Amino acid sequence: MILRINTRTRTHAFEKPGAYAGLGGRALTSRVIRSEVPADCHPLSGENKLVIAPGTLTGTTAATSGRISVGAKSPLTGGIKESNSGGIVSQKLAKLGIQGIILEDKPEQDAPFMVIRVSKDGVTIEDAPATGSMGIYDYAKILDEKYGKAACAVIGAAGEMCLKASTIQFTDMAGRPARSAGRGGMGAVMGSKRVKAIIVDDAGAPGVTYADKDAFMKAGKRWAEILRTHPITSQGLPGFGTAILINIINEAGALPTKNFRTGRFDRASQVSGEKMVELIEKRGGKAKEGCHVGCAIQCSQMFVDEKGEYVTSGFEYETLWAMGPNLLIDDMDTLALLDRHCDEYGVDTIEMGNALAMYMEAGVIPWGDGKAALEMLKKIGARDPLGRILGNGATYVADAFGVDRIPVVKNQSLPAYDPRAVKGVGVTYATSPQGGDHTAGYAVCQNVLSCGGTVAPHSKEGQAELSKNLQIATAAIDSTGFCLFVAFAVLDTADALQTICDLISAKYGQTVTPNDVVALGTQILTDEQEFNKAAGFTKVHDQLPRWFRQKLPPHDVTWDFSAEELQAAKV
Amino acid sequence: MILRINTRTRTHAFEKPGAYAGLGGRALTSRVIRSEVPADCHPLSGENKLVIAPGTLTGTTAATSGRISVGAKSPLTGGIKESNSGGIVSQKLAKLGIQGIILEDKPEQDAPFMVIRVSKDGVTIEDAPATGSMGIYDYAKILDEKYGKAACAVIGAAGEMCLKASTIQFTDMAGRPARSAGRGGMGAVMGSKRVKAIIVDDAGAPGVTYADKDAFMKAGKRWAEILRTHPITSQGLPGFGTAILINIINEAGALPTKNFRTGRFDRASQVSGEKMVELIEKRGGKAKEGCHVGCAIQCSQMFVDEKGEYVTSGFEYETLWAMGPNLLIDDMDTLALLDRHCDEYGVDTIEMGNALAMYMEAGVIPWGDGKAALEMLKKIGARDPLGRILGNGATYVADAFGVDRIPVVKNQSLPAYDPRAVKGVGVTYATSPQGGDHTAGYAVCQNVLSCGGTVAPHSKEGQAELSKNLQIATAAIDSTGFCLFVAFAVLDTADALQTICDLISAKYGQTVTPNDVVALGTQILTDEQEFNKAAGFTKVHDQLPRWFRQKLPPHDVTWDFSAEELQAAKV
Repeated sequence: MILRINTRTRTHAFEKPGAYAGLGGRALTSRVIRSEVPADCHPLSGENKLVIAPGTLTGTTAATSGRISVGAKSPLTGGIKESNSGGIVSQKLAKLGIQGIILEDKPEQDAPFMVIRVSKDGVTIEDAPATGSMGIYDYAKILDEKYGKAACAVIGAAGEMCLKASTIQFTDMAGRPARSAGRGGMGAVMGSKRVKAIIVDDAGAPGVTYADKDAFMKAGKRWAEILRTHPITSQGLPGFGTAILINIINEAGALPTKNFRTGRFDRASQVSGEKMVELIEKRGGKAKEGCHVGCAIQCSQMFVDEKGEYVTSGFEYETLWAMGPNLLIDDMDTLALLDRHCDEYGVDTIEMGNALAMYMEAGVIPWGDGKAALEMLKKIGARDPLGRILGNGATYVADAFGVDRIPVVKNQSLPAYDPRAVKGVGVTYATSPQGGDHTAGYAVCQNVLSCGGTVAPHSKEGQAELSKNLQIATAAIDSTGFCLFVAFAVLDTADALQTICDLISAKYGQTVTPNDVVALGTQILTDEQEFNKAAGFTKVHDQLPRWFRQKLPPHDVTWDFSAEELQAAKV
Repeated sequence: MILRINTRTRTHAFEKPGAYAGLGGRALTSRVIRSEVPADCHPLSGENKLVIAPGTLTGTTAATSGRISVGAKSPLTGGIKESNSGGIVSQKLAKLGIQGIILEDKPEQDAPFMVIRVSKDGVTIEDAPATGSMGIYDYAKILDEKYGKAACAVIGAAGEMCLKASTIQFTDMAGRPARSAGRGGMGAVMGSKRVKAIIVDDAGAPGVTYADKDAFMKAGKRWAEILRTHPITSQGLPGFGTAILINIINEAGALPTKNFRTGRFDRASQVSGEKMVELIEKRGGKAKEGCHVGCAIQCSQMFVDEKGEYVTSGFEYETLWAMGPNLLIDDMDTLALLDRHCDEYGVDTIEMGNALAMYMEAGVIPWGDGKAALEMLKKIGARDPLGRILGNGATYVADAFGVDRIPVVKNQSLPAYDPRAVKGVGVTYATSPQGGDHTAGYAVCQNVLSCGGTVAPHSKEGQAELSKNLQIATAAIDSTGFCLFVAFAVLDTADALQTICDLISAKYGQTVTPNDVVALGTQILTDEQEFNKAAGFTKVHDQLPRWFRQKLPPHDVTWDFSAEELQAAKV
């Protein structure tokens, strides 16, 4: 069922899926946005909608299938957005038989915030407990006390202020709101609708059904085996988290340093996954943790301070990079605090790292000054004007201070791979309907990790085709609820794609082939591209900022794709 | 000659016009920007250029021909921009034989600001006297003392901070920097190039030449007569300034009130041209003044306070509206102070009125509170974060506070005619390459003033064609140095267009026909549209915000043009 909630009237309705039958995750969010949202509407207007959807395999016993998709017209990019998160909401929704939640319309700008609670007994909507200056961690506790231990999606100060970089935070298995639908300002859309939190309680839920349970169990066993045997999903990621990439990407000369001035940071080892695990083991944290029930990869962790007290989890490579090498900050504890504060206020760590870089470009705070960066970040919680500027992302900060070296595509900050030194991911940044995003087509696999084949990172040769194929595959994966990281194993395992098809076929009782998966991914990208076109995007927007034509040390590589060459990466 | 100045090396060169031969004003600025500036560059990058050009008739004895065009890629709209101003720089440049100045490249972001001085002896470039917290009026005095009484183009705090709404202020005949190239953030482009002021001294200049002086004088006599006999150019504008429109547009139900909520302001008479003149006459100001030497219209004034001391001039209808009815402020003295402060910091009054409306929408300051508005404006001078937000214009303020009712097209704030009640000017707002702009095709003439014919304001009938023809004519006029206000007389006088052709023919010795004028206007718009297309604009951007589909009292009219219908207004 689709749960449709009108946030102005505080009414709701359960609907049959109708035209949305069979769609999950990103396939559902992008289809709803393309079908129901006027592409030229203001992202904070009542005409925008926020769609929250588990994947088609979420709630099943298939390993690592508990991700959630959040979609809307993005306040950051002005285009369509699917933002993907872990946490435990997704599986609970699936078990309640809810294919997706669609938040519609909006109340008056100064209406009280509301909490929406979804359970087997239906939906209740009531005024949210007051926020005050509270961060999301404390607020989640308040929700826990009021509504009982339950999974939730919640926004922080940034979302309440409708800032462009605001996230929706999802609670993890320990009840910590540490998982983010981070990119594209989904929290601002939720905030504009005056929804502070959505609580999902699956007590007594019917659970998911299987057309052929035996076949599903058989395929599920093989699926777990595939994830358990690939070195990246079984050793690299569980061992050091995504932060294992710091040393690897630095070695490749592709770790953007000081706002993409060089590809190498001389103190990279101090902010590496190896260093993180060393500290965690010494201090008594937890080096290995899943973001949702049934994850076979376990790339998260519990990072603790010198006293052994919890600081943060979901402490990703992207965050370490954005706040670390990108800002010349080399202290792991400072980076952990920055990560925690991003979660507390509900802001995207990638966007914040780049936005703080703009403050450093402008001389507002000094390069490498972690304390100053943290103080600036706290201004979001304080709802200070400088915090509002920061919370609106990199371009917004740059515009306030006359900075023109802004690393964005479609106004979204670039992630932790310099596109000149990993050209395949550069093509993805340029051409993804999502804006500057690595996850949309992670060519780092073939360009650097020799996973799924090898494509030379500094050459243009083959990158557009590689990126296109990865974008299609990724869109399809994002519709299943599988974590994108399963791709490492899928790319290197001959029967992996067929196994995914077997899982879907067994659950839904319709035979799904690899061709169907490709068609689904292509359809998702088509929905997204068509929405963006109607919103005013052209191939001019499918390009990196011009200053990436400057040479990047140490390999002195430049960005040399023409707009026409890049169009080959689009479906 | 074209004067090309490299702001990074502080070197310059005089060049023959070459491909730019015969082009003046907007024809020159738009051609240079289209030809030399990469459409996808950042407006504050060294790849953008700032072009300053007198018209083809500027410097001659033809009445009202002393306007100046400033062009660049706009930091506000992201598209091409021509911003037009009065003042005395234009005629002096023309008399020095300078067809246009092109500022190129840029110094380091923290390099000292420079002053460029142009005279018959050539060009000098040196560090600018320190600004401190000084406003532009005081700074102009410093320049006067250092460089002798000379005409200048100068930026204020907003331009120094590279804010999107920053102007370039031009000195008038009294040496006051009260004339603005107001729209599209041209001051930010100048500021990014670290140019604080350009001083133009025409002492000993050769003056302009005429191919046939007798013919020019004869045509000039008829031209003056035309301006002297039309009721608008000879009585309305000289009598009450542009502010004469307050009562007229209010009566028409088209005066945007409280951020475009209604078309009538119950206290309009308190902020009208009639009221302004009454105060000026009582207090001993000056009700009639030209913005440049030889203006036959004299629509400016010297507004004084209760003690008879100068407050502001160039106190336009647009400013009175933007700060008055639009914000529910009804006190003329407060409005005069707001206008003066905009000039002091170098910010566009239309953009500021709309940006202050966003602060009121957000509840940051109360509706109708003139003192609070003035205090907020002063934050630009204080370089306070809230001032930086304000100085970046309406959308930027709205984005900082989650407001979605933003009256902009191509990110530029709409002027003082509600597009629902004056549909012809609405079509111009939507389709002009300049963004929301009334001057680009002033259909108010035919829709409200019965000047140049009559087209019913509330109907769609005939508006696209009307706007298109006006846009073509306006572009041509903007290339001559004529003030756009000559159009009132031209539209109603059978031989006026031929007289303009006679003036150009006599000056340049080549026969120019009305068809040539139309071709020129069309070419200018083509240059601008092509630049915008290359910058990523599509027909999606040629439309008003969706909330203009709501009814506007008192006539309950709505905006009902489709994107396709609007394309008929483009060349």
